[in-house]
Amino acid sequence: MPFSFSVKSKLKNSLGRTGVIKTPHGIIETPAFIVVGTKATVKSVTIEQLKEIGVQSVLANTYHLYLQPRDSLIKDSGGLGKFMGWSGPTFTDSGGFQVFSLGEAFGKSVGKIATGEEIANYKDEENDLEISKPRLVSIDEDGVDFKSFRDGSMHRFTPERSMEIQQNLGADIIFAFDECTSPNAPHQYQKEAMERTHRWAKRCIDSHNKEDQALFGVVQGGRFEDLRKESAKTIGEMDFDGFGIGGSFTKEDMGTAVKWVNQILPENKPRHMLGIGEPEDLFLGVENGCDTFDCVAPTRLARGASLYTKNGRMIILNSQYRNDLKPIEEDCGCYTCRNFSRAYLGHLFRANEMLASTLGSIHNLYFIVNLVKKIRESILDDTFFEFKKSFIKRYTRNH
Amino acid sequence: MPFSFSVKSKLKNSLGRTGVIKTPHGIIETPAFIVVGTKATVKSVTIEQLKEIGVQSVLANTYHLYLQPRDSLIKDSGGLGKFMGWSGPTFTDSGGFQVFSLGEAFGKSVGKIATGEEIANYKDEENDLEISKPRLVSIDEDGVDFKSFRDGSMHRFTPERSMEIQQNLGADIIFAFDECTSPNAPHQYQKEAMERTHRWAKRCIDSHNKEDQALFGVVQGGRFEDLRKESAKTIGEMDFDGFGIGGSFTKEDMGTAVKWVNQILPENKPRHMLGIGEPEDLFLGVENGCDTFDCVAPTRLARGASLYTKNGRMIILNSQYRNDLKPIEEDCGCYTCRNFSRAYLGHLFRANEMLASTLGSIHNLYFIVNLVKKIRESILDDTFFEFKKSFIKRYTRNH
Repeated sequence: MPFSFSVKSKLKNSLGRTGVIKTPHGIIETPAFIVVGTKATVKSVTIEQLKEIGVQSVLANTYHLYLQPRDSLIKDSGGLGKFMGWSGPTFTDSGGFQVFSLGEAFGKSVGKIATGEEIANYKDEENDLEISKPRLVSIDEDGVDFKSFRDGSMHRFTPERSMEIQQNLGADIIFAFDECTSPNAPHQYQKEAMERTHRWAKRCIDSHNKEDQALFGVVQGGRFEDLRKESAKTIGEMDFDGFGIGGSFTKEDMGTAVKWVNQILPENKPRHMLGIGEPEDLFLGVENGCDTFDCVAPTRLARGASLYTKNGRMIILNSQYRNDLKPIEEDCGCYTCRNFSRAYLGHLFRANEMLASTLGSIHNLYFIVNLVKKIRESILDDTFFEFKKSFIKRYTRNH
Repeated sequence: MPFSFSVKSKLKNSLGRTGVIKTPHGIIETPAFIVVGTKATVKSVTIEQLKEIGVQSVLANTYHLYLQPRDSLIKDSGGLGKFMGWSGPTFTDSGGFQVFSLGEAFGKSVGKIATGEEIANYKDEENDLEISKPRLVSIDEDGVDFKSFRDGSMHRFTPERSMEIQQNLGADIIFAFDECTSPNAPHQYQKEAMERTHRWAKRCIDSHNKEDQALFGVVQGGRFEDLRKESAKTIGEMDFDGFGIGGSFTKEDMGTAVKWVNQILPENKPRHMLGIGEPEDLFLGVENGCDTFDCVAPTRLARGASLYTKNGRMIILNSQYRNDLKPIEEDCGCYTCRNFSRAYLGHLFRANEMLASTLGSIHNLYFIVNLVKKIRESILDDTFFEFKKSFIKRYTRNH
């Protein structure tokens, strides 16, 4: 099995560490931000641009690719990487989050990346979900029936079906099929769902047989300490190659739910935090033991004209930038900042030009991907806590 | 004045020729296809991608850039090229076409590139014009009052104002402010408008004073032989650095109106055919003496999932390509064809992914830009007529 993980160094007085994940398509130096390419494309950005940004790996969505263009086509194309022209490591999620976030089971319709009001209220176009609209999803012990967001047709996912689809998609790292609950669901329901997820995890291991593909189990349990710990113990003892931490998280959960889990999960296997990626969350996630992260925020925010800077987010449409000939950030090394002014970017957004999304996404991805690389370096040279403190102080100054 | 044109070779028994235009930002080997970047961006394509395609020069629209972001900002940014990050030669049109195509003077609202029904019926999003909607434009001897397509505010263009704006935009090659008539306008009106255009041409020469910028006069006269010849003679005798051939053309007009004009225009100055760019038109335009061309068709068609191939246009959404793992064209050297399958492109278009427009535009621009380069080579090695015959036969086979 051409997959391995090794811890390279540890952060003192915390769960943080650096490491290297080896996959059939290359290595991932961790901590790492995994870029989301929902439908086998990182929205408005080419593969060449991803490489220049320094992206190490891409995560695509099983739910979307199953519905269109179908996993069979991607298998026939030689797998996800070949299909989309990406030669590096790839992930697919299990499809669970999308299946459940479309349905009643997700209760209050809290988006996975709802770490701030702005994001929570944002239309979830990245995933084509209208999250406020209740839809039908029916869970039983064997699996889930759900309606396609595209045409209302009925479909069924089971742990075995998710494995089959993800094997067809052929990513290097895939996830066990889990039930995604609302963080507001009561203890009793969280427990019931978690136990079902554990039984499904076992079935995923039993049905997965693609030798060159790593399978990660997903820890659930909401915000309840007893459930999170139980889930980490149960999933952690199973024969997975790594782990995903599922659920919806606020900043406060990073020092509780995430920490509880990572204190229990085996140290010698990688831990992926699903759907998290705001700058402050990344520091907290790393400090509390997570190795990889994925999130749609960088590209989604960019399409909404919101650009990351070390001083917090810049809304490039603000009139103060209309005649501003400086780049987004003077010392940023990204393609956008090396070549274009704030005035030009604002013009492109006002003119509804597609290039606005491309240039904005390149900057935001560069910012986040390289922030996590700097976090990695700060662990290696033992300056993590100073870096965290100074970054967050500056980033949140104007909040 | 750092601008020159030299004819390098001539095509036997026709008006066709090869040449080199020298500008302060580099040379253009002609015949050449000039890519349209209406609002200081070639829609959905980056500058790096344009370079890789082999694009020599970009043409932007004075009307749009005047309204937003304002020519003053572009001047402050160091000119059009600097503003958009393009270091090669640039053109701006005069703004005339957009001003008049929005107004009643344009009569039957025939789009400039209305060379086929498909294009004629296409919403003119490239220029943000709803061409079927009559709007106010009022022409007098001095200039034109018009309403902004953006907010209905009133504006006035005169020959002097167009020069001022184009000098601010700072392109290497600019055009005199002309009145654009409908090709269906009667002889009397065409004559009146043409004579006004001639008087305006003189005023453009008188008011233009940017030393490093070439000024091209525009020949009008609709489809009338006497008017086209008179306009070519009058404009051709003025002190312009080159010429634009204005009006709306069908394939039939190439061997008549265009030929009449180029038989009269001085041989030692370049001739730009405004708004023309379908494959067959390019052969006819070159044969009849045009050196450069611009057209929105390659990028507009690409956004509509219509892709050029040597066998005619391919509608990539057709179900026959759904599982087709071949590239658009097996022997195409463009980034898209080197990396992606028809199935992947169809998936991106079905999923409304922006990357679909980017990859489609890269292919279509590569196809057209390199077609004109091959036309140039065929003149140099005296195989133009064979190349034309074989290309058109194959391209129109399925029409």
